[in-house]
Amino acid sequence: MNTTIAIRKPDDFHCHFRTGQMLQRVVPFTAAVFARAIAMPNTKPSKQTRQDAIAYRGEILDAVGNDFQPLMTIEVTDRTTPKMIKDAVDANVIAGKFYPQGVTTNSQNGVSDFDALNPVFAEMERCRMRALFHGEDPSPGVFCLDRERSFLKTLRKIVETFPELKIVLEHVSTDNALFAVSTYDNVAATITAHHLLLTLDDVVGGLISPHNFCKPLAKRPEDRDALLKAATSGNPKFFFGSDSAPHSRGTKECAHGCAGCFTAPVVLPLLAQIFEECDALDKLQGFVSEFGADFYGLPRNTGTITLFKEDWVVPEEYEGTALFWGGKTLHWKTI
Amino acid sequence: MNTTIAIRKPDDFHCHFRTGQMLQRVVPFTAAVFARAIAMPNTKPSKQTRQDAIAYRGEILDAVGNDFQPLMTIEVTDRTTPKMIKDAVDANVIAGKFYPQGVTTNSQNGVSDFDALNPVFAEMERCRMRALFHGEDPSPGVFCLDRERSFLKTLRKIVETFPELKIVLEHVSTDNALFAVSTYDNVAATITAHHLLLTLDDVVGGLISPHNFCKPLAKRPEDRDALLKAATSGNPKFFFGSDSAPHSRGTKECAHGCAGCFTAPVVLPLLAQIFEECDALDKLQGFVSEFGADFYGLPRNTGTITLFKEDWVVPEEYEGTALFWGGKTLHWKTI
Repeated sequence: MNTTIAIRKPDDFHCHFRTGQMLQRVVPFTAAVFARAIAMPNTKPSKQTRQDAIAYRGEILDAVGNDFQPLMTIEVTDRTTPKMIKDAVDANVIAGKFYPQGVTTNSQNGVSDFDALNPVFAEMERCRMRALFHGEDPSPGVFCLDRERSFLKTLRKIVETFPELKIVLEHVSTDNALFAVSTYDNVAATITAHHLLLTLDDVVGGLISPHNFCKPLAKRPEDRDALLKAATSGNPKFFFGSDSAPHSRGTKECAHGCAGCFTAPVVLPLLAQIFEECDALDKLQGFVSEFGADFYGLPRNTGTITLFKEDWVVPEEYEGTALFWGGKTLHWKTI
Repeated sequence: MNTTIAIRKPDDFHCHFRTGQMLQRVVPFTAAVFARAIAMPNTKPSKQTRQDAIAYRGEILDAVGNDFQPLMTIEVTDRTTPKMIKDAVDANVIAGKFYPQGVTTNSQNGVSDFDALNPVFAEMERCRMRALFHGEDPSPGVFCLDRERSFLKTLRKIVETFPELKIVLEHVSTDNALFAVSTYDNVAATITAHHLLLTLDDVVGGLISPHNFCKPLAKRPEDRDALLKAATSGNPKFFFGSDSAPHSRGTKECAHGCAGCFTAPVVLPLLAQIFEECDALDKLQGFVSEFGADFYGLPRNTGTITLFKEDWVVPEEYEGTALFWGGKTLHWKTI
């Protein structure tokens, strides 16, 4: 039985740092474990330009210093132009993030018409900028559990029109999405730790649990099992993005609570535990430290991180921010 | 266009009054509109005997006086005997309520083995006591959205073993359950107002909304549409039970919130609005004032209640108890 695991220093290819005081509080958790992390742009207001991304990179680095490398993104909106794409790429912005309008936290500026963005997609393809999708169809009349599947039509159209565009379908939650990703050459997917753990039963199956509420919603047990299989398969199309999303307890425990799980402080031990339970600890390094870097064309990290076998109880909150898996015991610990 | 509706005084065939101060606060809302209401027995501790029911009837009447008639029930548990059934019937207890163990609020004493209760079912059949089921299968591994469908196997077995037993499948939430009820001679179903309004989208489709969280969970739009069709069909197998279930705001807006919607103060205007939108106001009286009484073998009420067309905004809470449909506008008003 393993009592330590040493793996190549990992990356988080999907993270929400927010801004201001919240950013100051949460970035150190990610930087303590990950060499790099994609900083998602849906702050308030969102990061939509080269200048926004440069300033946001500075704010993140101010919180932790230069050992940590934030990977910058801009939000693509109906007003994004090809020139804005080129300018951003010139400033080392590595991805453009697409939110269908209204689909999740701070997505009011999201895209209302993907077809109208064809010149933007063409420029991203030319500049080798990755296109990241929150893959849910927010159309009225599409039932919450069907939104990811319904988005796959849009994905297919973009893939067929821009075959060289490298696309990440973010935080996939269904067997349908895994299948779609596996069929397209230039499409990969991030998988979160919480989607490997949760089903809708954990949100509304017993009492209603806002701290397990995220978008896309956790789905059926069959979907969760398919995600576990994909994450532990060693298939390089599936890699880790935490979607760590901090919220104050008050914005979760209320009449209309926000979506998102703040996993950064627990996520590597959680992944080790999940992979161990799947008898797949040997697949952890590829999933968290290699496949994502490869897909983004980044060098793999050179350092190492070690996890020790030790039980510890996750605190319920950290300075007013609700922690995912609060009150539960984890069996692995970093440092 | 109607500006008033006068209907026979209605009954609520499924209501939670709780006990103590909460009971004092909530019973008057039901008594203001309904001539009679089934008082569900899953208080803390639950009402399991003739004596419990007699005392509970007294507590309810103390809160409102004799113009209102509570219809008493006992919870059937693994420890219920045929003699307890007969004794309860002799004290005018009209129904025994079955909760599968652990399925909803205060169901810790629920039934763990329905087969073992065959002598109890036989006595209920003999005494013409109605059998009321919270029809969800709480077995581990049954996904939350599948629990009602999974319970239908248990229902079928009971129906086939006790063909003369009059059964109510409570607060049905799926097309599957409606179909099952429609196929059995001695089985009827209550339908709540909130299941006629909500889908899972209203619970977790946007933000997470604990005030729309109930058991059984609101399901897919197709299920909600089937419920609307059944309620407005004029089929006497489907009648009204509010499942009005008061909770303090604090037990809803928290990390692990309780299931239940407190609808009593708004439910008749809400039903009028729903039936009007379905162009079925002529079917309202049967649903709320006649079919239930007929199924229970009770006389139909003789008085009348009138609703007026007038817009009003539902308060968010009443003395700390969260109101269903809070902040929304209703178009009908009683008195």
